[in-house]
Amino acid sequence: MSVIYNRVALIGLGLIASSMAHAMREGGLVGEIVGFAKSAGTRATALEIGFVDRVTETAAQAVEGADLVVLAVPVGAMEAIAREIGPHLAEGATVTDVGSVKQSVIAAVGPHLPDSVHFIPGHPLAGTEHSGPRSGFAALFRNRWWLLTPPEGADPAAVARLADLCRAMGANVDMMDAAHHDLVLAVVSHTPHLIAYTMVGVADDLGRVSNSEVIKYSASGFRDFTRIAASDPTMWRDVFLTNKEATLEILGRFTEELFALQRAIRLGDGAHLHEYFTRTRAICRGIIEAGQDTAAPDFGRSQPGAPAKTG
Amino acid sequence: MSVIYNRVALIGLGLIASSMAHAMREGGLVGEIVGFAKSAGTRATALEIGFVDRVTETAAQAVEGADLVVLAVPVGAMEAIAREIGPHLAEGATVTDVGSVKQSVIAAVGPHLPDSVHFIPGHPLAGTEHSGPRSGFAALFRNRWWLLTPPEGADPAAVARLADLCRAMGANVDMMDAAHHDLVLAVVSHTPHLIAYTMVGVADDLGRVSNSEVIKYSASGFRDFTRIAASDPTMWRDVFLTNKEATLEILGRFTEELFALQRAIRLGDGAHLHEYFTRTRAICRGIIEAGQDTAAPDFGRSQPGAPAKTG
Repeated sequence: MSVIYNRVALIGLGLIASSMAHAMREGGLVGEIVGFAKSAGTRATALEIGFVDRVTETAAQAVEGADLVVLAVPVGAMEAIAREIGPHLAEGATVTDVGSVKQSVIAAVGPHLPDSVHFIPGHPLAGTEHSGPRSGFAALFRNRWWLLTPPEGADPAAVARLADLCRAMGANVDMMDAAHHDLVLAVVSHTPHLIAYTMVGVADDLGRVSNSEVIKYSASGFRDFTRIAASDPTMWRDVFLTNKEATLEILGRFTEELFALQRAIRLGDGAHLHEYFTRTRAICRGIIEAGQDTAAPDFGRSQPGAPAKTG
Repeated sequence: MSVIYNRVALIGLGLIASSMAHAMREGGLVGEIVGFAKSAGTRATALEIGFVDRVTETAAQAVEGADLVVLAVPVGAMEAIAREIGPHLAEGATVTDVGSVKQSVIAAVGPHLPDSVHFIPGHPLAGTEHSGPRSGFAALFRNRWWLLTPPEGADPAAVARLADLCRAMGANVDMMDAAHHDLVLAVVSHTPHLIAYTMVGVADDLGRVSNSEVIKYSASGFRDFTRIAASDPTMWRDVFLTNKEATLEILGRFTEELFALQRAIRLGDGAHLHEYFTRTRAICRGIIEAGQDTAAPDFGRSQPGAPAKTG
């Protein structure tokens, strides 16, 4: 694999950025890796682990001379970073991000970037419940989707180059419109996470069932909620605040459906329930057969696994 | 391991009963295994696989001379079976069931059993998304909980004997009151399943996001919902119809909490969201550390695995 970018600036050194650094190093995909994080402790950790060649004390310094700049900070922090680095970006550089929401990142970041750079927003659908510079590993993106949402009129060569890097890190790349991305993610990720957080909160709050009982018997379904409700609170706060419209739309649909099922339970309408469960089973089978349903210790990267479902 | 029961009658020959048969055979835990299922095809399959010694054409015939009778039919079918077998049960026999709801099973089954038998309701917290006589395997109950809800005044020796069988099949046994069981299960299993079914239905219904997109990007959180929404529609219909009160109570708490979070999103109240997500994270961590959070291909029986969580 030849070098795709000569100097990469990672702004933010958490799970995603550190995993990118490990993957880029492992594949020999880039020249120098420069890192910046707000916290001096994080910068020191990154240097100590050695996944960056050097760190800088400001984001502006980090992006100097970089032909790829990766914004890997919480969505809510993107605007301030973009304002700071804008004047320091090299001509012809590509700027991407890894935020879970695209329209609001584009609105926050876009206006601060000069016309001479290529802004190609992105979102790797990959993660673990861990965060921070010590949580990264090279295989994080393997067989995961990396969605790119280049704006209309984006330079095809710059887009192709970034897609090459994502693929070289093991990811599958799809392109889509930013608005569609935000709706799709509201369905497959954001609303499910909010629901999971809610259910965990309900269990935690219920005096008559102890937390130790919830933990003990969690294999009966509950653990699948906790799996997704254990991740970074700041990241998720920003997701919901910035993908507000799509999340509220899907939540509205969700509560409408839930109330219909709740009513069927109250009225003892078994036919309605049976019909609903039969219909939903079909799409679940589709997902299981597509091999997306696995949570093996390697995060499902090496092989698809049979899912657990307890009665 | 010595023989715990001389003749076991399995009423119903689906996933749970066939897994019990395999486990009992493997451990040499019982003498003869007699099977009954409503469908002649299922009976023939059970004989062909060989996990029963013989099958009978009626449930009444199956229980004759059995010292353990296991009711492994959907909860909604329990009453008719109990009425049929009641007069044919051997004196001193133990009758148990494997239903996901306990109070309504007790109300449906209890009145039809003679005083000369020990009725000890049970619920193994184990399953897969498959059903039918071909889906069973001996390791299904290994390291899973088997909850027993003996009525007050139950014979301690009969309870201990049944618990011995469960443990010999690899399960951990807990005893609890039937009402508490139904509330705990409403929290850790029934309500999560209803929510998962609902979210899958919403995704399936949404014109602007295709099913193939949902399947493709399901690793972002959605797959954890589909994992639990792929199981038997009849079983789940019966669960919700028979554990109505506890499910509706927990659902009520759930929608209350969900509306509070939805309102926080609408109002942009990041502090509320962050506080909520931080609190729920703690209980999730507890579950992960307890090693209940795994969905390895062996259903987590051999080792706890690190959970996948995508951003």
